[in-house]
Amino acid sequence: MLALTILGNNSAIPAFGRNPTAQLLQNDDEAFLIDCGEGTQLQLSKYKIKKSKISHVFISHLHGDHYFGLIGLLTSMSLLSRTQDLHIFGPPKLESIINIQLDAADTELCYKVFFHSLGEDGHIANTKRMSVESFRVKHRIDCWGFLFREKKKPRSIDPDKARAYEIPAAFYEQLQKGEDYITKKGTVVANADVTHPAPKPKSYAYCADTVYDTSLVDKVKGVDLLYHETTYLKEHEERAAARFHCTTVQAADIAKKGAVQKLIIGHFSSKYEVLDEFLTEAKEVFEETELALEGACYKV
Amino acid sequence: MLALTILGNNSAIPAFGRNPTAQLLQNDDEAFLIDCGEGTQLQLSKYKIKKSKISHVFISHLHGDHYFGLIGLLTSMSLLSRTQDLHIFGPPKLESIINIQLDAADTELCYKVFFHSLGEDGHIANTKRMSVESFRVKHRIDCWGFLFREKKKPRSIDPDKARAYEIPAAFYEQLQKGEDYITKKGTVVANADVTHPAPKPKSYAYCADTVYDTSLVDKVKGVDLLYHETTYLKEHEERAAARFHCTTVQAADIAKKGAVQKLIIGHFSSKYEVLDEFLTEAKEVFEETELALEGACYKV
Repeated sequence: MLALTILGNNSAIPAFGRNPTAQLLQNDDEAFLIDCGEGTQLQLSKYKIKKSKISHVFISHLHGDHYFGLIGLLTSMSLLSRTQDLHIFGPPKLESIINIQLDAADTELCYKVFFHSLGEDGHIANTKRMSVESFRVKHRIDCWGFLFREKKKPRSIDPDKARAYEIPAAFYEQLQKGEDYITKKGTVVANADVTHPAPKPKSYAYCADTVYDTSLVDKVKGVDLLYHETTYLKEHEERAAARFHCTTVQAADIAKKGAVQKLIIGHFSSKYEVLDEFLTEAKEVFEETELALEGACYKV
Repeated sequence: MLALTILGNNSAIPAFGRNPTAQLLQNDDEAFLIDCGEGTQLQLSKYKIKKSKISHVFISHLHGDHYFGLIGLLTSMSLLSRTQDLHIFGPPKLESIINIQLDAADTELCYKVFFHSLGEDGHIANTKRMSVESFRVKHRIDCWGFLFREKKKPRSIDPDKARAYEIPAAFYEQLQKGEDYITKKGTVVANADVTHPAPKPKSYAYCADTVYDTSLVDKVKGVDLLYHETTYLKEHEERAAARFHCTTVQAADIAKKGAVQKLIIGHFSSKYEVLDEFLTEAKEVFEETELALEGACYKV
């Protein structure tokens, strides 16, 4: 199951107990951290998520509310004697920002970190179960969105039926791939008779800080879950544009045009204490909207 | 009144709801931030302390649990439209670490920051009410302690008595300085007859991460309040020494030898969930000890 946990949903300044942006995307046995604002390691502890589970970190851009928590998380992972490799995808300058701080502390991490600089749109990572693409979004500084797609899953075998047809276990992998089985006598056992189709691979698109930009529609088209920033309510459309951010109805418009299954909105401005109106406004345009609430886990 | 508020009391990894090191030293109208671990700006909000009050920041060393929160605090101050200057005292490399992050965000702070590099022991800052010295402590990397001394306060005038002697208001400032008043007829009004002595200036010494080092005794001699790190309980003396840290009894020993009025211990290792034993052990050596508890305010 692919699921998204919100660790921080606020923009710029932490306010009203809301933390800066961070999210955790998890499938059965992988965990990806998306952005890492200050205090993310504390949020992980609060929600009882093991830091050691995270194999990949994706940083959208170098505004502090999206990455100031990364250096603390990396050093804590080392203090906790992490051994697995960590892959970090982010803007090119991120590596030197991390390294200058490790150098100043005379600290060498006890695990390997691989930095991958973001650039042109395209495929950036490939894990056991997931494929990840990045795409540029329009913000005041270089900024990227991410598209996570589950890989095609194997068909599941009905063991009773497979045994009844006397199909040898050695052929199971081929069954999972969809092949028919041919018995010694030449009888064809149709794959569909002994397997169930795999669940449809799910997809999640993360649009970090961005101005309203309909060219994003193509990037996120048809995803199961779209996260899109909504820093302001619709009355502040001008302010949003001036600061390269979006309003509720703009985010919902992208979701609607992209025909996504579900929209999650976040990156709320610190000027808002209550968030109800964000949901109301977005739902007027795109009914299947939810607020990104810290600690909540959304099934993709 | 000089008072110390603890914002974070933990070492290295945040644990059991405890935050990395940060403290706020305040007198009637000044506020100094001492160290600034990750999440300090959140702790300031939690305890309803205005960030704008802080005029000076003192960073002891460049291990992350003492400064990873600084860049977030600085950018938040700018987002909140701070106008006052900010003075930051810290290790020489701190300035470039801050600047590389501001550059990457294409951000210019809207107020002036003055970086002051720490070096040899001695006087480093002078404010309206306080004088500050730094001194080197022995840690794995360059590290400094700080000594805050209130300036001598003016004597307070007894207004009824001053009027009875017909002393003109123009002479009050001299009275506060301790001068006698001579009437037109040549009669001497002794200063002590019309003023009360000023309260004794208070002093606070902050010993950041340090190995057990009796040469500190001279630096902190006779202060009203001493903060000394106690990362470990006494049974872990060897581990403490290997990591350039101290135990409870070592901190208490410095306090005792320095004949300070009161000791506050903190920087607890993440391995300890309960802190009672820290207090018990330290009190065996130096009775006037208190635990540094987050949110607590200690009168100096």
